[in-house]
Amino acid sequence: MLSFDSDDARYIAELAEYVAIPSISRDADRETMLAAARWLVEKLDFADARIVETGGHPAVVGEWLGAPGAPTVLVYGHYDVQPTGSLDEWITPPFELAVEDGRLRGRGVTDDKGPVYMVLEVVRQFMAQEGRLPLNVRFLFEGEEEIGSPHLPDYVRAHAAELAADLVISADGAMWRASEPSLSIASKGLLALDVVVTGANRDLHSGRYGGTVANPVHGLVQILDSLHDPDGRITVAGFDDGVAPLSDAERAEIAAVPFEDADYRAELGVQALHGQPGLSTLERLWTRPTLEINGITGGGWYTVIPHEASAHITCRLVPGQDPQAVAAAVEKHVLAQAVPGVRVEVRVEPGGVPAYTIAPDHPAIRAGRQALAEVYPGRDVLLARIAGTLPATVLFEETIGAKTLFFSFSTADELLHAPNEFLRIPRLREGMRAWEQLLRLLADGEHRLAPMNR
Amino acid sequence: MLSFDSDDARYIAELAEYVAIPSISRDADRETMLAAARWLVEKLDFADARIVETGGHPAVVGEWLGAPGAPTVLVYGHYDVQPTGSLDEWITPPFELAVEDGRLRGRGVTDDKGPVYMVLEVVRQFMAQEGRLPLNVRFLFEGEEEIGSPHLPDYVRAHAAELAADLVISADGAMWRASEPSLSIASKGLLALDVVVTGANRDLHSGRYGGTVANPVHGLVQILDSLHDPDGRITVAGFDDGVAPLSDAERAEIAAVPFEDADYRAELGVQALHGQPGLSTLERLWTRPTLEINGITGGGWYTVIPHEASAHITCRLVPGQDPQAVAAAVEKHVLAQAVPGVRVEVRVEPGGVPAYTIAPDHPAIRAGRQALAEVYPGRDVLLARIAGTLPATVLFEETIGAKTLFFSFSTADELLHAPNEFLRIPRLREGMRAWEQLLRLLADGEHRLAPMNR
Repeated sequence: MLSFDSDDARYIAELAEYVAIPSISRDADRETMLAAARWLVEKLDFADARIVETGGHPAVVGEWLGAPGAPTVLVYGHYDVQPTGSLDEWITPPFELAVEDGRLRGRGVTDDKGPVYMVLEVVRQFMAQEGRLPLNVRFLFEGEEEIGSPHLPDYVRAHAAELAADLVISADGAMWRASEPSLSIASKGLLALDVVVTGANRDLHSGRYGGTVANPVHGLVQILDSLHDPDGRITVAGFDDGVAPLSDAERAEIAAVPFEDADYRAELGVQALHGQPGLSTLERLWTRPTLEINGITGGGWYTVIPHEASAHITCRLVPGQDPQAVAAAVEKHVLAQAVPGVRVEVRVEPGGVPAYTIAPDHPAIRAGRQALAEVYPGRDVLLARIAGTLPATVLFEETIGAKTLFFSFSTADELLHAPNEFLRIPRLREGMRAWEQLLRLLADGEHRLAPMNR
Repeated sequence: MLSFDSDDARYIAELAEYVAIPSISRDADRETMLAAARWLVEKLDFADARIVETGGHPAVVGEWLGAPGAPTVLVYGHYDVQPTGSLDEWITPPFELAVEDGRLRGRGVTDDKGPVYMVLEVVRQFMAQEGRLPLNVRFLFEGEEEIGSPHLPDYVRAHAAELAADLVISADGAMWRASEPSLSIASKGLLALDVVVTGANRDLHSGRYGGTVANPVHGLVQILDSLHDPDGRITVAGFDDGVAPLSDAERAEIAAVPFEDADYRAELGVQALHGQPGLSTLERLWTRPTLEINGITGGGWYTVIPHEASAHITCRLVPGQDPQAVAAAVEKHVLAQAVPGVRVEVRVEPGGVPAYTIAPDHPAIRAGRQALAEVYPGRDVLLARIAGTLPATVLFEETIGAKTLFFSFSTADELLHAPNEFLRIPRLREGMRAWEQLLRLLADGEHRLAPMNR
């Protein structure tokens, strides 16, 4: 067993440095992104870590290959973070790590800086205390996960040999609940697009032109309203093509997971839940595709007929859905709704990814369950699914032929992507101990990874 | 005849000073609003002009009552301006008056600083060249017209005796087209309200919560889409209560006004016009109430289910509609659309105003037509309507019992309320000459105003 610190002071201080770098992949300049990458490189000096160019924000790679004959894992994570959203909604500044009530608050602390920090600390302690790692480990930390990893595919394809591994272990992802250790066996795919509706060649006075021209906001809301029926079913023809109905076995497996709608409603502060009828909340969350309007904007709080209105939409995809086919189906539906007098454009973002799954009896899942069981004795380790998207998983399977184990100590309720993102402090040392166990189990014993023929 | 300058240089220079004061009633601080008010006071030194408190932004009043036995008019206008909207869309900075292609560009130049400047210059020249005005003139310039004149009613009610007049002449408003002189015999009322839809107690990750909760943007677009049918009819029950169908006489009067849909489409850059079926464009614009979504906002361009979405709506009202009853009808309709899992709130702005009309044979209309005919010889003076709103008109009728003549040399296409607002330079001297004629005609001859019994 490795020896970890007896309190969290050093961990928090180091993580605070990392969170202080506002590495928002959507907005930050190169110097800021480089600062976050350099922070990682410094932690991985023993693994020949280095900053590499991708065509977008740089990535960090490294490797320690001092265990010949042992399996090799590739640890994946990201150093970029989401935009802050409205600063007014943050209790404390997003890039100043706040410690409060057993939680750390700051943008990126749980997605994905904290979870990445845990594995860095574990491998550093292996080197410091044992002089070696239990197996070969490669590292890949990207800087564009929050914008859909636009440059990762080309980079990984071009460097597949340098990234070769028997398993990818992702420090990104999240356990679905703090009270029950769990491993995810699936994540949803992602497709993002904008709908832009334009009307006249300028903003018009709402009195002097009202009643004579199509208002782009009206045109947009008509389109957006047509995407679901009032019960919450997606009405886009072809959207569900290839999606298998839930089997009885899947329904039983999901029903076995403790889940109370009343608790979920209370946590979210809503009077009622909403979505496709005939399915339980967890069935919808884990197994059904979604189409959510993330943002909408047009005009302003004064008397205009705006000349443009637009919305940002993301679809979460499940196995069987092809992102390009879904994009085409949504575009066809949207364009068919356009009223005369406005122009409607659908802008599909590049980088759509299909859903991902790993078999429940894969050695990595079995090793992961045992590692969690040792850290959380007496608690069942559940097999859950990630309703979010990890684009890298599909890519690694295609390029280096390895499955991905999600091994994150983030929790789904920690305000990922929202103001006041946080991480529970006890997770720091729990996560480190679990990573230690996982690496040992994958190296030796009944869950040992079979090294590929290379 | 008064003698005016032989070119516009001095007029433009003085107007540039006035436009340079960013008197945005929605945002500006007191000192900025006072600066605009002081600029007016300086121009009206002969009329004992002074700044008066209203409880909101100050107003400017003054009077020259040196024509005993002659009628009295109250000249009304406003010194406040609309917000700029996006600065990126302005060709030149909004508060630096630009001279280009026979036009002056700047926020407020045509609504209402330029039109007010014209009448100030005329009365100053009367005093300078003739030592008197043809009739008694009072002045009232407010600083809150663009935010719905919230404090004007109380001020006018409390000072009705000081503002007493036989006619109000408004330097606000706009001719509907540059090529044809016109007078307006009606303006629409206004009702503004916000619809706010709230969901969970925070923004949620669109993957980790997608498919389980009602998305407030979805809830909002469903509500907004329900306000019109696809053809553009307003579907709110009770919205039209009290609105008379168009009479054959009105339809004939409007049909006599030259108007080409093709030209209108080309000016606006749209492929098709839109609105209540069965009516001509001008009939819709001039005589039908509207409900326009001016602005919409919620979430952002990232993967969230936002916790709130909202829209700003204004309704333009026609004779027969009571603003409070319309507000109640819209609120009832909106609340009835709320889906389970979201909260819907309707916030009606105070200060709703009904529509306004003046009879086509009122002496003021007859005098105005003659004044315009003298300035624009050979061109028909049309009777038009203002599809915009002038809240002060209804107020003056209620409080001092006087009708209002709109006598503005702004034109409806001059980007009022939008970026790149402009005023046609020739309108400066045309407007001054017309004001001179109007004041002379109202004082003497067949269109002389009958002084009220006071």
